[in-house]
Amino acid sequence: MKDMNSTIASNISEIAKLARKFNCFYLAGLHQGTCKPFLVGGHQVGLIRPDILKHLERFPECYVTLKVFRVTGKYVELNPAFRDYKERSSRIAAVLQSLKKEGEICALKGWRDECFEVSTPFYHESLMEMDRSAICLFGIRNYGVSINGYLFHPIKGLCIWLQQRSFTKQTWPGKWDCFVSGGLAVGYGIMETAIKEVAEEASVVGDLAKKLVPAGCVSFYFESERGLFPNTEYVYDLELPQDFKPENADGEVETFELLTAEECVQRALTTQFKTTSAPVLLDFLIRRGFINPENEPNYRHIIELLHVPLQTIYKWPQTDILTNGDGENLQR
Amino acid sequence: MKDMNSTIASNISEIAKLARKFNCFYLAGLHQGTCKPFLVGGHQVGLIRPDILKHLERFPECYVTLKVFRVTGKYVELNPAFRDYKERSSRIAAVLQSLKKEGEICALKGWRDECFEVSTPFYHESLMEMDRSAICLFGIRNYGVSINGYLFHPIKGLCIWLQQRSFTKQTWPGKWDCFVSGGLAVGYGIMETAIKEVAEEASVVGDLAKKLVPAGCVSFYFESERGLFPNTEYVYDLELPQDFKPENADGEVETFELLTAEECVQRALTTQFKTTSAPVLLDFLIRRGFINPENEPNYRHIIELLHVPLQTIYKWPQTDILTNGDGENLQR
Repeated sequence: MKDMNSTIASNISEIAKLARKFNCFYLAGLHQGTCKPFLVGGHQVGLIRPDILKHLERFPECYVTLKVFRVTGKYVELNPAFRDYKERSSRIAAVLQSLKKEGEICALKGWRDECFEVSTPFYHESLMEMDRSAICLFGIRNYGVSINGYLFHPIKGLCIWLQQRSFTKQTWPGKWDCFVSGGLAVGYGIMETAIKEVAEEASVVGDLAKKLVPAGCVSFYFESERGLFPNTEYVYDLELPQDFKPENADGEVETFELLTAEECVQRALTTQFKTTSAPVLLDFLIRRGFINPENEPNYRHIIELLHVPLQTIYKWPQTDILTNGDGENLQR
Repeated sequence: MKDMNSTIASNISEIAKLARKFNCFYLAGLHQGTCKPFLVGGHQVGLIRPDILKHLERFPECYVTLKVFRVTGKYVELNPAFRDYKERSSRIAAVLQSLKKEGEICALKGWRDECFEVSTPFYHESLMEMDRSAICLFGIRNYGVSINGYLFHPIKGLCIWLQQRSFTKQTWPGKWDCFVSGGLAVGYGIMETAIKEVAEEASVVGDLAKKLVPAGCVSFYFESERGLFPNTEYVYDLELPQDFKPENADGEVETFELLTAEECVQRALTTQFKTTSAPVLLDFLIRRGFINPENEPNYRHIIELLHVPLQTIYKWPQTDILTNGDGENLQR
């Protein structure tokens, strides 16, 4: 087996290896079957790893009258007695605050005081909210916006602005990242978030911000020690003037740098680049023809790994989409 | 069940319904488990429906010394005694010629005298060739190129050239289609096919053809009475001058028409549009921001259905991609 693996390893391109890296959970962990579906209000909204479940299982004992989680052999369920958004959110928040105080879960050290929505997939009905730092503990789908700031340089051709993240950021400090990106927080729309983020992170406002063009989304499933990341990024392109210089307004950016497309690829392949931002950059370079079937032997493989079927993965109990009218498979 | 289905049906957009239509096999047939993996040289290259298998099973009897197919409870295998490309291709061709003469299989009535390659997915090693008309009988992955011919009209905005297919075409005669498209035939490269097709179908040559920009690929899994269509289209964009008028040179096109983006959507939603060309058009409209998260409630669902994981579907016997060194999952 080892020989076979090394043969393959030497035959796949560096870009394909990167695409496999940001999909390490999709390609490996998912199939090991050690994670349990997490259900809220009858809908699968996440997956829970055994190391996290170990902590959560203690919580029924803390609540004398009402257990928080019901753990069966096949899934973990938020107590269905918590009937509405408010009650679910506060019960989960209490558990997370306890765990945060204990200090044993790495991800909770980066508590954000910013909540993400947990919702039913298709009708997008809100089920509850949860602090952003805890989303990865429950493998809850994470939505964000990412903006490709680019220009066509008369000599260098396609050039792309990258940002270096501030060294004080809770996640991926000091790493290189896309031009601008941000998570979809409770109460904000998608385009609204894109407009807010380009203003805060790069001082793009007014007529220039109106040039944002939605260009699709990328989906991938990453895993790190912190947890599970089934991420979908709504992608926007923004052609910037030659003389534009981004200026950070919120202290979250260390610096910006304008790179050629080739320099971007090389930067993305280093450990200095935020792994979970590489999908947006690769998608942009593919859509603009810089990475293409003639120069990338694993072209189809990479494109498949930029669009992994997250909605198909999160549909426990498994039901046939057409015959059983499984609304979960018709996500917004 | 019916009530639940009709509730969902009334809540999904017309565009999402179209995306489900060109993925009817991915969403339904695939999960019924009635099709058997088709193996050549130890690699799964297709899926065979029971109605087609019924015809193929007769063929072992016709060959006194050598059976063509080995049918087990789990899969159908081309006789591994056929050791090379040439022998496999001629044995299959003989079966297909017989079936064609019998006239019972609809797809073979459109015999093309143009062969498609059947190859191992990752290393792209050629296993055999097969007449284009028969590919769908074996559920073999089908690769093509499609070109979006577009322009920005000063008043109408984004406009797209569509072609109406000739009424004499073997498949989808008279239907509306993308600007230009063609299958990847044996011996032709991807960009080479794109250049050949824009010249033949629309008289785009010289400097104009050099403006072709590769922009990714779409993958979907359609089924019709004729057979199974696990299709991947390599997508190219071509910005055309305002005064350009496409002229057909090979008799395969009835006419061309320049439509606004909105008119294109409306045309694609009619039965006058070739169902299997809609993915290319929808992908283009998404990449250009015309279909976006603000105006399309099923945006994510549609994008997932433009990139279904065909390489993950074709990996019988099921093996873990990382631990077993399953080359099939690293497709070109």
